[in-house]
Amino acid sequence: MRNYSPVNFTNVRMQGDFWRERLDTVLNRTIESQHAKLVEMGMIESLECTQPPPPLRIARRNDGFTTQIFWDSDIGKWIEAASYALGHGKNERIEAQIDEITDLYAKVQLPDGYLNTWYIGREIDKRWTNLRDNHELYNAGHLLEGAIAYFQATGKRKLLDVMEKYVDHIAATFGTGPGQKRGYPGHEEIELALVKLYYVTKAQKHLDLVVYFINQRGAQPHYFDEEAIARGDDPKKYWAGTYEYSQAHIPVREQTKVVGHAVRAFYLYTAMADIAAEINDPALKKACELLWDDVMSKRMYVTAGFGPSAHNEGFTTDYDLPNDTAYAETCATVAMVFWAQRMLNLDLDGKYGDALELGLFNSGLSGLSLEGTHYFYENKLESDGTHQRWAWHNCPCCTMNVSRLVASIGGYFYSTGKDLIAVHLYGGTSATIDLGGKKVVLTEKSDFPWSGKVDISIDPEQSSEFTLKLRIPAWADGTKVAVNGTAIDIATNTDKGYLAIKRTWAKGDSVTMDLPMQVRRLYAHPKVRMDVGRVALSRGPLVYCVEQTDNPGALVSELKLPRTAEIHVEERKELLGGIKVLTANAIALTEGDWGGDTLYRTAPPTEKPASMTAIPYYIWNNRGPSRMQVWINEQQ
Amino acid sequence: MRNYSPVNFTNVRMQGDFWRERLDTVLNRTIESQHAKLVEMGMIESLECTQPPPPLRIARRNDGFTTQIFWDSDIGKWIEAASYALGHGKNERIEAQIDEITDLYAKVQLPDGYLNTWYIGREIDKRWTNLRDNHELYNAGHLLEGAIAYFQATGKRKLLDVMEKYVDHIAATFGTGPGQKRGYPGHEEIELALVKLYYVTKAQKHLDLVVYFINQRGAQPHYFDEEAIARGDDPKKYWAGTYEYSQAHIPVREQTKVVGHAVRAFYLYTAMADIAAEINDPALKKACELLWDDVMSKRMYVTAGFGPSAHNEGFTTDYDLPNDTAYAETCATVAMVFWAQRMLNLDLDGKYGDALELGLFNSGLSGLSLEGTHYFYENKLESDGTHQRWAWHNCPCCTMNVSRLVASIGGYFYSTGKDLIAVHLYGGTSATIDLGGKKVVLTEKSDFPWSGKVDISIDPEQSSEFTLKLRIPAWADGTKVAVNGTAIDIATNTDKGYLAIKRTWAKGDSVTMDLPMQVRRLYAHPKVRMDVGRVALSRGPLVYCVEQTDNPGALVSELKLPRTAEIHVEERKELLGGIKVLTANAIALTEGDWGGDTLYRTAPPTEKPASMTAIPYYIWNNRGPSRMQVWINEQQ
Repeated sequence: MRNYSPVNFTNVRMQGDFWRERLDTVLNRTIESQHAKLVEMGMIESLECTQPPPPLRIARRNDGFTTQIFWDSDIGKWIEAASYALGHGKNERIEAQIDEITDLYAKVQLPDGYLNTWYIGREIDKRWTNLRDNHELYNAGHLLEGAIAYFQATGKRKLLDVMEKYVDHIAATFGTGPGQKRGYPGHEEIELALVKLYYVTKAQKHLDLVVYFINQRGAQPHYFDEEAIARGDDPKKYWAGTYEYSQAHIPVREQTKVVGHAVRAFYLYTAMADIAAEINDPALKKACELLWDDVMSKRMYVTAGFGPSAHNEGFTTDYDLPNDTAYAETCATVAMVFWAQRMLNLDLDGKYGDALELGLFNSGLSGLSLEGTHYFYENKLESDGTHQRWAWHNCPCCTMNVSRLVASIGGYFYSTGKDLIAVHLYGGTSATIDLGGKKVVLTEKSDFPWSGKVDISIDPEQSSEFTLKLRIPAWADGTKVAVNGTAIDIATNTDKGYLAIKRTWAKGDSVTMDLPMQVRRLYAHPKVRMDVGRVALSRGPLVYCVEQTDNPGALVSELKLPRTAEIHVEERKELLGGIKVLTANAIALTEGDWGGDTLYRTAPPTEKPASMTAIPYYIWNNRGPSRMQVWINEQQ
Repeated sequence: MRNYSPVNFTNVRMQGDFWRERLDTVLNRTIESQHAKLVEMGMIESLECTQPPPPLRIARRNDGFTTQIFWDSDIGKWIEAASYALGHGKNERIEAQIDEITDLYAKVQLPDGYLNTWYIGREIDKRWTNLRDNHELYNAGHLLEGAIAYFQATGKRKLLDVMEKYVDHIAATFGTGPGQKRGYPGHEEIELALVKLYYVTKAQKHLDLVVYFINQRGAQPHYFDEEAIARGDDPKKYWAGTYEYSQAHIPVREQTKVVGHAVRAFYLYTAMADIAAEINDPALKKACELLWDDVMSKRMYVTAGFGPSAHNEGFTTDYDLPNDTAYAETCATVAMVFWAQRMLNLDLDGKYGDALELGLFNSGLSGLSLEGTHYFYENKLESDGTHQRWAWHNCPCCTMNVSRLVASIGGYFYSTGKDLIAVHLYGGTSATIDLGGKKVVLTEKSDFPWSGKVDISIDPEQSSEFTLKLRIPAWADGTKVAVNGTAIDIATNTDKGYLAIKRTWAKGDSVTMDLPMQVRRLYAHPKVRMDVGRVALSRGPLVYCVEQTDNPGALVSELKLPRTAEIHVEERKELLGGIKVLTANAIALTEGDWGGDTLYRTAPPTEKPASMTAIPYYIWNNRGPSRMQVWINEQQ
């Protein structure tokens, strides 16, 4: 059993400007535009499984490799995002679109329950022969998440029934029983989806299947070896070289280093944290904690991006965090947000809330353009001006990951425990919280993240004693909190980053928070060789960057920020929908006296004064191609 | 006709320690070990063209892609290097090895002259159907160079006859005549080889074939398009995306930007410079000059590495010179040396000599390990310790490029013109130079590059008037030169980097040079974003780097060199065969107070004094895996 449970987004009304605007963009534009892309790219059509399959339409040149093998997952993820949209208000068009997809899936599902449109449409005799590479269980997981979300939004069961039948087929196929395959996903995902199915159905069998997948992973003899041999392949010729790629190199409870494909890793850890809570497994919990501390202390970008390498879409070595070649897939940050939320179900520790917030406001949100129809797959921390958001992608995984995240953003704000409400995030919300059968309305008023002032009103249906836990962000040194005007002593009442206020709460009670929003200069560990001599700027949860558009005086790479320079916060209502920028008097290298013919010379570059303007990282590349840098050269 | 002609390496005896040692290593170890690799990898065996072809042996995991398609070129290059070894002294074993290869080639050559073991062994019906990708003409070029070198070393004609028959077949196949294909190489190389064949045979037809290849390149309708259509391929689906990849996007005389695959580019430019001289083509010469200035002013690493990107093994955008991901293939630097030499045949301009020297002493020589049996394919300027030389490579092009370069190193020291001897390089040599039929023995005594003092003795067979031109390196500010003890005024007698001394030279005449060897701090153009805030150190022609092995106090990436720090030159006779290192009092970031759990913090890293030692770049990675950095963080 979880110690803490998140409050569902349907119970959290977003009212503050910041997330409300992002949410409205997703609801009014992104969801529909994504469906249009599914149609345009032939992804809906492919569900008909016509023979022969229609030719692949691709978002860019991509020689020979088809991405259709994981299209089911993208459709599942769109259904999930669209269902979350329905959680904000009825929309018949979206329902009709999902119902149409549901009918297509119901039609092609095999009598035994199997449902994967790639294999059904092309090579059904090869199903379940390559779990390592071919994404069948991953696809099933995303479709299942979509079916659950649609059921929860509308009460319609048809897609959920289809998927439960498929899950029963999967449970019959895989396991440790006689005649069952000892397989598990090459791309983890279904594990966390099955936990959701368990919460919806309360059927123990679904939890058992997750536990099987978790326990079997990395066991010897290795299933991916055996499966390869059965296909007639040489397991030693595995294209990725190592099962670390899918975190299947050793059993999960023995894993202490975050390795391989970042999204795979974080989806797995999310389910591990779920299971650690549900079956009370201390070894699994310990593994999650070790993995968390490993990645956060040595392998995370300052923007909460993860996975430096395009080669394996994932992790390399400690402190290897290149900025311009950063992969930092949007999906990886979204997946970390999931994982952080599950860790908060186990322990109220501010480090999870801090990372969750950092991901949301930086490398997660940067995945979506301001107008809501363009996407970063890679969230680089430095660009020569060629890196831009895509209108679509051959592998459109990130597009729907960011839309489903934003569409359900309210679900990350609050948890409940026994006689306890925890507040993880700040903004403008109105939440109706069920605390052990008693209703509490909690309202946040704030201009967060632009301001750190947060007014919280607590309105229990009837007065009752419970603990309100407020996350004090690690960045908010000097936070002040008062209850009904009386200051609370933060130091003595805070444990692991959460301030506890235990009292009998009554209608009209209010808490005021003042989270200091000073600009912070961030330095990376000296071992991060790319960031030596550089500084990053942040304010509140937002990491900033210098974009060329705002800095006409010199290339952003030619700017140097003196260590002692005062940094000003300026509100720019007209800019990018209204943001706060950071400005400073900086120094710029001079090109004028260098000459275009000289590449190297013995005299150092001359310098000139230059003004520097930084904008929040998440909002860069919304004004056309432009150079960008998060880590700014510092003049010591 | 060339204005200046290089003095062949067989007339230049290497006596100085520096090159003599490298040469002895190549002659005594590298050449034989390379032949052993050809045997071990099945490359010699493959010349038998057995059916079916033997399985591929690979130097590392490389899924499915075979490199056999360009093995002929590697064999040709080995023959060339081995023949150069024969130029230093008879070696029956090497001769037997080359004779064996010759017999194999003679045996499989088709009656019409065609000779490519890949196509003959596998799919002869497909020959000449994919010049764009499949290296047939490139292979022919390298085999031809090998045949010429072997003929010159031994007088044995058999391989040369085989290759001339093949060249005649090629000339019959390609051209603008009726029934001829309008093709040209996808990987340039044969052009420069055919120029060599012209010099050996004086047969105009060989020069005509080069001119045809040069003129046809990039012409419309595009041959690579037509060829693809003839194969049933869609030319728009070209995997490289653009014919810039092979410099075939526009006719060569219209090219002003160095683009695409770096080795292809420089081999082409080498032949263009050859042809510009031979047929006196000012447009071609102008194109060479524009391309030279383009690459040298915007796209060259400070080590004379070229081509930042592994993606196209070549060029990207101006000032894009990443250090840790630098491709900077050894072959590209070697090819630049060829090109520079050909430019010196057109004009005695120090910029060509400077680049030639820079390439030889840095990104070229770094390709070969000190013991002579390991090779860099990529000459990165920064390494996290994982980058190491290979014992071999699936594409072993660089291995024999560096051995043939070192084996013929003497050939880059001198040129002759009308009544003129030009000295491009300094070291310990004894050259016997034919100056219009008169013999001049020119001897250099120097500990170059460790010392800038060079004593040159000029011993003409009989006294005669001619001009001695001495290259004054751009790095040698304040050079002093004296003839028989009398100082020469450098400023008034130097044109484009060459000091001219015209006099009647007699036996016993001597020139003394003093090239200042102060340590130079080098700064990159401000637009090179990777090098902002960094400094590189050089002394004479050598660029230095900090290798971790010599800097135990801190990671090399944590070192900062104060701008005002005095840099000391220290001789280390015991180190790496005897080198001069650079040392300085520097600053190091402290890890101690940071803690392993913290990745980012608001306090800048604390610092401590640290000694810094730099070694010549060419000699790094000769003591096992180690971090390395050319561009050092500078404390301003």
